[in-house]
Amino acid sequence: MSQTENSRAAKPGSEVTRPAAGSFHLAIDAMGGDHAPESVLDGMELAAERHPEARFLLVGDEARLAPLLAKHKRASKACTIRHAPDVVSGDMKPTAALRMRTSSMRVAIDAVAAGEAAGVVSAGNTGALMALGKIVVKTLPEIDRPALAAVGPSARGDVVLLDLGANIVCDARNLVEFAVMGDAFARAVLGLPNPTIGLMNVGSEELKGDERVRLAADMLRTSPLAANFHGFIEGHDITSGTVDVVVTDGFTGNVALKTGEGALKLVGGLLKQVFTSSLAAKLGYLLAKPALDRLREWMDPRRYNGAVLIGLNGLVVKSHGGTDALGFAHAMDVAMDMVTHRVNDRIREGLAAMPSRKRDAASLTAE
Amino acid sequence: MSQTENSRAAKPGSEVTRPAAGSFHLAIDAMGGDHAPESVLDGMELAAERHPEARFLLVGDEARLAPLLAKHKRASKACTIRHAPDVVSGDMKPTAALRMRTSSMRVAIDAVAAGEAAGVVSAGNTGALMALGKIVVKTLPEIDRPALAAVGPSARGDVVLLDLGANIVCDARNLVEFAVMGDAFARAVLGLPNPTIGLMNVGSEELKGDERVRLAADMLRTSPLAANFHGFIEGHDITSGTVDVVVTDGFTGNVALKTGEGALKLVGGLLKQVFTSSLAAKLGYLLAKPALDRLREWMDPRRYNGAVLIGLNGLVVKSHGGTDALGFAHAMDVAMDMVTHRVNDRIREGLAAMPSRKRDAASLTAE
Repeated sequence: MSQTENSRAAKPGSEVTRPAAGSFHLAIDAMGGDHAPESVLDGMELAAERHPEARFLLVGDEARLAPLLAKHKRASKACTIRHAPDVVSGDMKPTAALRMRTSSMRVAIDAVAAGEAAGVVSAGNTGALMALGKIVVKTLPEIDRPALAAVGPSARGDVVLLDLGANIVCDARNLVEFAVMGDAFARAVLGLPNPTIGLMNVGSEELKGDERVRLAADMLRTSPLAANFHGFIEGHDITSGTVDVVVTDGFTGNVALKTGEGALKLVGGLLKQVFTSSLAAKLGYLLAKPALDRLREWMDPRRYNGAVLIGLNGLVVKSHGGTDALGFAHAMDVAMDMVTHRVNDRIREGLAAMPSRKRDAASLTAE
Repeated sequence: MSQTENSRAAKPGSEVTRPAAGSFHLAIDAMGGDHAPESVLDGMELAAERHPEARFLLVGDEARLAPLLAKHKRASKACTIRHAPDVVSGDMKPTAALRMRTSSMRVAIDAVAAGEAAGVVSAGNTGALMALGKIVVKTLPEIDRPALAAVGPSARGDVVLLDLGANIVCDARNLVEFAVMGDAFARAVLGLPNPTIGLMNVGSEELKGDERVRLAADMLRTSPLAANFHGFIEGHDITSGTVDVVVTDGFTGNVALKTGEGALKLVGGLLKQVFTSSLAAKLGYLLAKPALDRLREWMDPRRYNGAVLIGLNGLVVKSHGGTDALGFAHAMDVAMDMVTHRVNDRIREGLAAMPSRKRDAASLTAE
């Protein structure tokens, strides 16, 4: 049975329990996304089954959520509703979203900032979520700038990519920090003990690229990540699986991600044309369908749903706005993996071990 | 019958004619590429058939080329051999290639610099070709920096992309010049009367991106290209065919191109697995083969071979090093289209009409 914090909209007979601070794994923005709150609750039902120990704070319009939640057996047991009367719309500017203090997105993020939940998952307005994450949850003191990270497919398994657009202009220090965060992400979410790291460039030779990537490469080569640092990689290395973690600035990463998605969509559309172009082709499709379905399943964007704003004092995970329950559940999986593997602790350890930091610390001590 | 400039290695009976300066459409580096000179001559044979009026200067080892050329009926008639004893190897640094004054690449480029040929096509070392192009042929006086441009596939026809890596760091002026060059390229090579232009960014809203792209967009919105300027585009717009010309800096363009190619390669490899995974799938493949072959033909990288270093006092076209005769012939087609449509004249006209230039000219007059 569902729990609500506020009896105002509670169903008769529902238990109203207020858990101790910090007891939630994730705060969930119930009202964000094209199919909210239904797809959010359906996704949460799946996630609750996969993570039976997890506790969720479900934030949104209590009057709408309570009866819906009652129909979700596992989600009901796993979560508590917190009322938030407003919704950040898809076209709202981040500045407007920042002023709206009682939106489901804001109340969920406030719960992370207050330490009540380790992270938040929202399928709502991306710009608003990024802005609220940075301003309300705040950047880790060890980090200059958080990055947007996600997982994509390659010929040799999944690949972590960052930054996907949180930072349009990056310097070498940012890129090095992204490498540390990508390393922690790949360990937690992909379960890799020693993820390899590549720095995006226009060629693999040491002299290629601008000052910024060459300096970042030099810093990584003399860091504790050196053993797993592959060096420079090129665009095609993302899908060939040359490395487990692809590090680049937010402009390049955003364009690369969308270009890759666009190329896959182009082929998908053309294959559809191929398989409907003649009776023979249609029959051929039916014969190859089981194998093609496996391919479609493998490439399913829902399997890669969940972009993480990493580097904050709490996890902020963005689910695709148009995804369904399966996709939302995957974004919750990503968030749960990062929470249970204490990604932020790993990032702090990784940054503390960077030689530049040690020098900074030494110079501070010397003063 | 082939013509040679030098009787030293000429076959008995070959005519030795030296054409008037400027009479060649293209100088061809016969020795560059993995399958040179055979694939170059085979490609030239195809190009000579498509462009019966064209005159080519074939540069390379005369002793090797003369007997080979004699077997290519159309190419023999269309071209003159110029001897060059050396070859720029694939792994040679651009600085070393610059010092080698008698390589086939250098002698071909010298012919362009001297005005003997309107352009050069080489399947050799990319870095060396770019460096020789810039230093020997030299940049158009109206242009700050040349760009590397090529054509790719989209759901709505071919798309011109630039810069693909000639300029790692670009400012707003460079991006505006790339738009002018891309416009001229699309008119000449794609035959479009009014190509639309998009500026790559991380979102389509006016406030997205860095200062550089916003300034370039402002400049384009108040330029003679304004009517065809679509504004900002994103990575997926390349393959969806939102615009005919995609303008971006060389770092982003290089990564986007290679990421898109990598994504297509990933799907290609997976489809191969699908269609060999079972007897039914194999049979399905055979039934759909005619339609799949049309798709393969449409996506054939040879159809998109030929990247142009545009913005020089002559055309420098890079063919893929591993391509065959068909691919090399396509690179020659691109070069011929640009020569016959006088792309450089169009670029000069386009730049002269830019308001910033007019202001510069006005301020100079006022002084």
